[in-house]
Amino acid sequence: MNAPVVRYLTGITTTGTPHLGNYVGAIRPTVQASRRPGTENFYFLADYHALIKCDEPARIQRSTLEIAACWLAAGLDPQQVYFYRQSDIPEIPELTWLLTCVTGKGLLNRAHAYKAQVDKNLAAGVEPDNDVTAGLFMYPVLMAADIVMFNAHKVPVGRDQVQHLEMARDMAASFNHLYGEHFTLPEAQIDETVATLPGLDGRKMSKSYDNVIALFGPREQMRKQIFSIVTDSRAPGEPKEVEGSALFQIYQAFADQAETAALRKAYAEGIAWSDAKQLLFERIDREIAPMRQRYDELVNDPAQLERILKGGAEKARAIATPFIGRLRHAVGLRNLAAQPQAAGKAKSKQALPSFKQYREADGRHYFKFVDGGGALLLQSVGFDSPQEAGRAVARLKQEGLAGAEGAARRAEGVSEAQVKAALAQLAAG
Amino acid sequence: MNAPVVRYLTGITTTGTPHLGNYVGAIRPTVQASRRPGTENFYFLADYHALIKCDEPARIQRSTLEIAACWLAAGLDPQQVYFYRQSDIPEIPELTWLLTCVTGKGLLNRAHAYKAQVDKNLAAGVEPDNDVTAGLFMYPVLMAADIVMFNAHKVPVGRDQVQHLEMARDMAASFNHLYGEHFTLPEAQIDETVATLPGLDGRKMSKSYDNVIALFGPREQMRKQIFSIVTDSRAPGEPKEVEGSALFQIYQAFADQAETAALRKAYAEGIAWSDAKQLLFERIDREIAPMRQRYDELVNDPAQLERILKGGAEKARAIATPFIGRLRHAVGLRNLAAQPQAAGKAKSKQALPSFKQYREADGRHYFKFVDGGGALLLQSVGFDSPQEAGRAVARLKQEGLAGAEGAARRAEGVSEAQVKAALAQLAAG
Repeated sequence: MNAPVVRYLTGITTTGTPHLGNYVGAIRPTVQASRRPGTENFYFLADYHALIKCDEPARIQRSTLEIAACWLAAGLDPQQVYFYRQSDIPEIPELTWLLTCVTGKGLLNRAHAYKAQVDKNLAAGVEPDNDVTAGLFMYPVLMAADIVMFNAHKVPVGRDQVQHLEMARDMAASFNHLYGEHFTLPEAQIDETVATLPGLDGRKMSKSYDNVIALFGPREQMRKQIFSIVTDSRAPGEPKEVEGSALFQIYQAFADQAETAALRKAYAEGIAWSDAKQLLFERIDREIAPMRQRYDELVNDPAQLERILKGGAEKARAIATPFIGRLRHAVGLRNLAAQPQAAGKAKSKQALPSFKQYREADGRHYFKFVDGGGALLLQSVGFDSPQEAGRAVARLKQEGLAGAEGAARRAEGVSEAQVKAALAQLAAG
Repeated sequence: MNAPVVRYLTGITTTGTPHLGNYVGAIRPTVQASRRPGTENFYFLADYHALIKCDEPARIQRSTLEIAACWLAAGLDPQQVYFYRQSDIPEIPELTWLLTCVTGKGLLNRAHAYKAQVDKNLAAGVEPDNDVTAGLFMYPVLMAADIVMFNAHKVPVGRDQVQHLEMARDMAASFNHLYGEHFTLPEAQIDETVATLPGLDGRKMSKSYDNVIALFGPREQMRKQIFSIVTDSRAPGEPKEVEGSALFQIYQAFADQAETAALRKAYAEGIAWSDAKQLLFERIDREIAPMRQRYDELVNDPAQLERILKGGAEKARAIATPFIGRLRHAVGLRNLAAQPQAAGKAKSKQALPSFKQYREADGRHYFKFVDGGGALLLQSVGFDSPQEAGRAVARLKQEGLAGAEGAARRAEGVSEAQVKAALAQLAAG
């Protein structure tokens, strides 16, 4: 029995330059996760999102270049994963519009990111929507499109994004309800153990605190930054505390257990801060140096990066293009020639019972049998592959309810006779 | 001197089937207007808009088919005009997102269509956003994208749409302000003389009153519907009033002056209602019958219609595709290889003075010369063509201010020395 493939999707907003904290907290674990067997992994440079908060074109361009180079230098393999730039996928803004039309405005009114801005405005005594762009208001819809475009099962997010993910589920469910089961409902995957690295001053490393160590700056810059980590004033020879030592915590994020134990011992034995800093610098540089070379190579060859991203977009669009075609058809944006033309005819066709196959967030394949009005008649168990689910449907169609044994059960309140009648109607249809 | 070309744009929502009132009020005058010399005319089937209010796929498909067939049967020449289906232009949802990011949410809060729904909800004692979709809320942005995608100068609208048009101007201006002069600011063209046709019961002909005469139904159906027009009970031989006679008004919408005078006389002389109805039927049928044949031919050959629409989309995308490329570049969605990579470099490049060419709503071509911070230095007069404007810019660059004679004047408070310095800076840049 093959384990089902689980699709993960992660977006990276292209407005900054990654620092060591981003590397430890996001890039390194994500690159490792991208190698898990049984997963398909989608990573995209969220440049349409970047437009919401950044109106500096050169910064978006530069950030896209640097972030793409960082992830690749850190080991992301574009052959193994889907690595693309959001704005290379024209299907995404189109899907955003389709979802916009099935999304209640009330849902968006309740989005945390929007409400936070409103609260800030109210506290400042200005209009609630002061300085709120439609982009900020609509971004949960764009985010939903990013996710359901590829029917991702799991989206690793921080706690602050859980609600937006739930909104994506709501939008996908609304669409499915109106137009048939097209979307897998995505699930948030909250990683509580995300490592946050302290910065130079001991607070969380963050650009807004101006306390970062550049990830792929020149080697000498990294040394200089590491040597500027704030320590206490204990002299060489005096025992030092690992507790609360930013230097120690950063070292830990790179060292193995034996190395960490050795530094703990050295602290107790009174290592000089300058020696400890030199040790830290060498340990980080051991990991970063080979990547830095690759990073510099990529950043200095933007044509190569562009080719890699375009290749990733092609791979992603091999999924997105046919899928948006099906979605367009579902909502009525159709080739006029490809379909029954008479509205009446189309309606009576729609009114037939039908089988719907889909994949759930658990990665398994399901089908259901619904009547012409969309009411559930049969619900299948989970299958390992769409083929197996398809075979069960075929048996049902050929053998009637007898063929459903173990594969599907009647919905509550639905009689055998109802199912039989619907199957007959479908066969005659 | 060539008169400047003025671009008109009209969208047609694809949710219904045109009736005789639509023909007299919209289709016929618009088809006539499409032949005006000195104009370029864009007509599109607004199927993305249709999704806002219609979740019946078959209805959208059927309506698209029927509306396209109506307009073509009524004489719209797809060789002469741009006739396309909105959803065939993927640049439009993309531009919608770019505009979304420069649009204040407060602007959309004030949109009449949205506010009308809110008022209705408040009157009904339910939540203000009850049953309001994000689609309804966002449709002014989609509408703006429809218009500025083609830099339309004039958009014929009813009074109720004037505000939405002003919002499109606002969005275009915001974008221009942030990213340079890319968009012509569109103008509403309000036609106060739009003919509204009375329906069978004398009220305005409208599907919601169920009083319509089908435009391209079978000939017998049209006769039957015309014979069901409500009249008063005056007997044959009794003189009849033209005032308030729906029959007379509909006749007028099709007849020339002589014919109208003749019917007026017949009314006074006591024509029987049945004879008047027969007269009306024959008069309408004289105009409609040749079109009906073409309509039937088109509706029964959806593949032909599909080809025509696809051809129109190709023509429209010949404008939209390169234009969205420039807009993407402007906001920072760029080929990584095509541009200076260092943010520092890009910034100093941006800080150079520059010439900006654009077209105004008057159809004329302008340029302005702005300093690195975007402040206006020179403003040109209007030129008949972009080439002429370009030649004036070239002279300015080569000959300095002497080359500007008659072509541009300094902005208020700007000295000759400032302009000279900026020109020198640009030349050195």
